[in-house]
Amino acid sequence: MQQLPALVVLLAVLLQFGTMFAVGRARGKYGIHAPATSGHPAFERAYRVQMNTLEAVLLFLPTLWLAARYGFAGWAGVAGLAWIVGRTWYALAYLRDAARRGGGYVLGMLAWAAVLVMAVIGLARALLLA
Amino acid sequence: MQQLPALVVLLAVLLQFGTMFAVGRARGKYGIHAPATSGHPAFERAYRVQMNTLEAVLLFLPTLWLAARYGFAGWAGVAGLAWIVGRTWYALAYLRDAARRGGGYVLGMLAWAAVLVMAVIGLARALLLA
Amino acid sequence: MQQLPALVVLLAVLLQFGTMFAVGRARGKYGIHAPATSGHPAFERAYRVQMNTLEAVLLFLPTLWLAARYGFAGWAGVAGLAWIVGRTWYALAYLRDAARRGGGYVLGMLAWAAVLVMAVIGLARALLLA
Repeated sequence: MQQLPALVVLLAVLLQFGTMFAVGRARGKYGIHAPATSGHPAFERAYRVQMNTLEAVLLFLPTLWLAARYGFAGWAGVAGLAWIVGRTWYALAYLRDAARRGGGYVLGMLAWAAVLVMAVIGLARALLLA
Repeated sequence: MQQLPALVVLLAVLLQFGTMFAVGRARGKYGIHAPATSGHPAFERAYRVQMNTLEAVLLFLPTLWLAARYGFAGWAGVAGLAWIVGRTWYALAYLRDAARRGGGYVLGMLAWAAVLVMAVIGLARALLLA
Repeated sequence: MQQLPALVVLLAVLLQFGTMFAVGRARGKYGIHAPATSGHPAFERAYRVQMNTLEAVLLFLPTLWLAARYGFAGWAGVAGLAWIVGRTWYALAYLRDAARRGGGYVLGMLAWAAVLVMAVIGLARALLLA
């Protein structure tokens, strides 16, 4: 259970790579040459998925680190797996249709909120006992 | 003092969340539907604030980690609090008017530079003593 | 050799700062006022370099952390230096001409893939021995 957050980090890296790959493929398929980031709705969705995933990763990983460091490695790892499921669902749904991204988004945010609560409790405990 | 960098990480996470929230609210208020990222100046400012905050966080957190790991946890934590103040000021000012973002930006950069100096000194010391 | 990943983190921070600096300079040179992120091809290239560097850093640093934590600090550090070379080459080439960004990109991806393999092996070993 102590290694679970590290597994979540690995999966978050692979999720990011997947969303980058989707953008590269859409660049080729729709003939959008860098540095352009617009020109076809499907490319624009792939690009938004990549950027939203990046934003979510940068919000999530520091929170995961805090929770894991301050006594919640196991539970934060479990919530982290739920976050991976939510963000993967979000990415796959959004690539097809922007209107379908809600479910995965909500699951990802709930999982992040759970880890945030652990981080706050763990850090508050450490500050009060210091 | 040893937990101060962790508190700064938590505040950086909350700052990011705040800038995401401002983008979501501006999407609703000005009727900008994803995947669009333009269409109204106030939305575009909110989006730039989110992206600039993201860039600043990804520059700052690894620097903070280096300084804290190599013997400057307390001072890096203090500079980190100044960075949080600067970046929050930047975000709030820029949301109203792009021309007012200078003060917070400068404070954030000075705080980052201070932590960078600590990181360089700490790492150089570790490399030379190894 | 144990401090090599930390040196790579420091260089990744400086690389990010360099790409931010190039965007700021291009804003001034071509008169692109925030929050705009388009208006001149050279500015747009600088902006894409910054964003692509940011994406690459957020993909690379967690992978580097995993590999360093799970027994490959030295080798991951060496691959990290190759990644820094590749990403710096990419940034300098892309700033001049988008068509020339291939070489640095490939070197960066190969170095990342090497660190990813180390991370997967190290983490799998830790999970199996737990």
